[in-house]
Amino acid sequence: MTEVEVKKTQESLQDRLAQVVELLHRQRVVEDLTHRQEGPHSDRVGNLVHRQNLVELQRKLDDLHSADVAYILEALPLEERLTVWQLVQADRDGDILLEVSDSVRETLIADMDDHELLAAAKEMDADELADLAPELPRDVVHELMEALDGQQRERVRSALSYDEEQVGALMDFEMVTIREDVSLEVVLRYLRRLKELPGHTDKLFVVDYDGVLKGVLPIKRLLVNDPEKQVAEVMASDPVSFHPDENGYDAAQAFERYDLISAPVVDKNGKLIGRLTIDEMVDLIREESESEVLSMAGLREEEDIFASVWKSLRNRWAWLAVNLITAFVASRVIGLFEGSIEKLVALAALMPIVAGIGGNSGNQTITMIVRAMALDQVSTGNTSRLMRKELAVSLINGVVWGGVIGVVAYLLYGSWSLGVVMTAAMTLNLLLAALMGVLIPMTLARLGRDPAMGASVMITAVTDSGGFFIFLGLATIFLL
Amino acid sequence: MTEVEVKKTQESLQDRLAQVVELLHRQRVVEDLTHRQEGPHSDRVGNLVHRQNLVELQRKLDDLHSADVAYILEALPLEERLTVWQLVQADRDGDILLEVSDSVRETLIADMDDHELLAAAKEMDADELADLAPELPRDVVHELMEALDGQQRERVRSALSYDEEQVGALMDFEMVTIREDVSLEVVLRYLRRLKELPGHTDKLFVVDYDGVLKGVLPIKRLLVNDPEKQVAEVMASDPVSFHPDENGYDAAQAFERYDLISAPVVDKNGKLIGRLTIDEMVDLIREESESEVLSMAGLREEEDIFASVWKSLRNRWAWLAVNLITAFVASRVIGLFEGSIEKLVALAALMPIVAGIGGNSGNQTITMIVRAMALDQVSTGNTSRLMRKELAVSLINGVVWGGVIGVVAYLLYGSWSLGVVMTAAMTLNLLLAALMGVLIPMTLARLGRDPAMGASVMITAVTDSGGFFIFLGLATIFLL
Repeated sequence: MTEVEVKKTQESLQDRLAQVVELLHRQRVVEDLTHRQEGPHSDRVGNLVHRQNLVELQRKLDDLHSADVAYILEALPLEERLTVWQLVQADRDGDILLEVSDSVRETLIADMDDHELLAAAKEMDADELADLAPELPRDVVHELMEALDGQQRERVRSALSYDEEQVGALMDFEMVTIREDVSLEVVLRYLRRLKELPGHTDKLFVVDYDGVLKGVLPIKRLLVNDPEKQVAEVMASDPVSFHPDENGYDAAQAFERYDLISAPVVDKNGKLIGRLTIDEMVDLIREESESEVLSMAGLREEEDIFASVWKSLRNRWAWLAVNLITAFVASRVIGLFEGSIEKLVALAALMPIVAGIGGNSGNQTITMIVRAMALDQVSTGNTSRLMRKELAVSLINGVVWGGVIGVVAYLLYGSWSLGVVMTAAMTLNLLLAALMGVLIPMTLARLGRDPAMGASVMITAVTDSGGFFIFLGLATIFLL
Repeated sequence: MTEVEVKKTQESLQDRLAQVVELLHRQRVVEDLTHRQEGPHSDRVGNLVHRQNLVELQRKLDDLHSADVAYILEALPLEERLTVWQLVQADRDGDILLEVSDSVRETLIADMDDHELLAAAKEMDADELADLAPELPRDVVHELMEALDGQQRERVRSALSYDEEQVGALMDFEMVTIREDVSLEVVLRYLRRLKELPGHTDKLFVVDYDGVLKGVLPIKRLLVNDPEKQVAEVMASDPVSFHPDENGYDAAQAFERYDLISAPVVDKNGKLIGRLTIDEMVDLIREESESEVLSMAGLREEEDIFASVWKSLRNRWAWLAVNLITAFVASRVIGLFEGSIEKLVALAALMPIVAGIGGNSGNQTITMIVRAMALDQVSTGNTSRLMRKELAVSLINGVVWGGVIGVVAYLLYGSWSLGVVMTAAMTLNLLLAALMGVLIPMTLARLGRDPAMGASVMITAVTDSGGFFIFLGLATIFLL
């Protein structure tokens, strides 16, 4: 949308958030007061203070960059969020909607009527419209599409036809294209006539008459070369380009690796159809690592921290339910050995140590493997080597820490054989943790799933049931 | 360093890695063969094939971007990594050293002699030298500093005087500065004389005669405005700028928020001393989320997946040791109730369910809070509201899932009261998990620590010991 000049303020974002919260609280106090003292006079005073507060708050918001307003909206509980949202100038609605997280956006859209939504959406570019469309009411989308010209409508349709994570859904259409048979002087004059260049324009796209990409002209080269030269002499003729059906995460890695600012997107025939820019890629990099953290812990998606209790429950139930089943299995494993525990109750006290250390060690392994897989560092060629290393680490940990715990068990219960069983069980469970810590994410990946998905829940399940079985089994054989 | 033109190949990075591994394996087979058949003839054949393989591998590497070679080095086990490293052309050593991860860089530097290191480092800019210096042998650094001119040496010293995460250590010195009282035409001519612009130049820095930053001139504006205009008319006079002692992560967030490509760094007096660029910031964003994942799982730092076993152990021991102590505490909690378990052995089988579900739910909460804290969304103003929400979620989970497990316990052991105790213990432990899931990261942050640090280990410790105590305690009171 329009370019906003970012000004540096000395206040940190945290400070600005604190100021807004402060104003909102003062506001609430005033409302409480006017509510309590219902005399006509106090009401008028209340109204006055009320209005003063709102005016001050509105002034604060007007001074802030849209991204900062978005940040403040995300950090506020629903009720206060909507108070602030209503104070934002209508012409900034669109910008801010594009900045907030999905879950917060939903709450804001729910608060707007069709008229406001239409006004906010009308200033957006085709790619931005496509981002927002799935969350808008159907008739608003319909009306918006009607209002677009043919090319724009086509672009929105095309962007919507791709997966959220495909390049085709991430690209924008704000490209400056030039021909290769003109001089740099002509290009410079052409740019001057444009009055404004799209954001993140670090290169111009060189296309032929059919729109096929012939190369890119980095602005840097345009500036340092003799204006008499032809574009074809100066351009880079074989630039990194992407296809609309490529995975966006791969594109983001390429941006990171090759330090790109923007890159062309071409169709099967080499025709230029859009471009990717670093800002979208940065968002993607952030999202990717976030979703890794979340899915390892067994959360379905990013949560608005002030989401309703019901939404939070839905986000967390799937993996809790899985965990319930695995915990039940572990419990039945112990049930198998109830006879042994009755005879030697120390087993009940010691068994969680075996399971717990196994879980912790397994989580370390699985975290490292998931990390390496996200960076594409794990291939079939090196799996067995990785496995050997993890097993070696576990073996040493088992002998050392298992030994320590074995001695402690002896000191507590005065039985050498109990100590030895403890050490052996710890070592075996750590080996199991290493084995599964490598195999679980790899198997998930081979099944085409996200290797981080519930990784923590699953490895803990294995080390719990496994740990109980190994320890109680060994104890039953050797101690009873 | 020098600008490399990135060309698009149709092969993915994974494919290229596979090719290198393939060549390395063929290489090893040849070596094995020549070793086994020690006749003079077979030896010569072996040598020939040997050399052919190496030549092919070298050609492959020469075609690759430094970032891609770095990726391949990271994905190879030590021995093969060094074989590849020796094949890389010496003049690319510096570039590649700057691209690889810290742990891999260490292994590469250990393989180079002083002469090679000096050659690699001599082509670097001051900021790159400063990045590398802490890992180089002391006498190499000394010799390098001697070889630098006064300004460069001063820059390296200054960069080294800051923390790795401060803006002063992240900035570079490749700025194009102009005066405000010249016309755009003059600026354009000046740029042409420079022959090459530094990477990521999206704006020129406008300074006065004392070097004080007056504003920035975005290249976009330079291109679209009338060349007759003065710089002062066109520049942005109050740009986002940073101080060298600011936190790099805050700067990275500002880059993300305001979609910056580069930004000036100024000292206390407003004098321009360097600039930040988006590529460094992207690396930082990636690192930040990585270190969050790792420290939650109780890993000290990023691990070279082929790190020696000894290194891996050091990386993981600290938190394993902590876990050992917490597991021991949990074990002693159970020890307190050995009498109860002897009387009702079903308790031993059921208690891990209470602890396990608590741990899982606590991990979900703590992950979400750590995430929100990293994004600065948690402030003192909203803590209590967050806490209420988490407690409500836990209460519902406890009643629902605890209820299910209670019924299962009844069906298994035929005791209603056991089922009720189970449900109550689950609910209480989930409430404990929610409470600590919010309090642990907040307390760590208030103590100035990383809120993600070992978060997973700590929450599990609380829900284990707490879960055992609550369940066995309730059982002892109500069932025996």
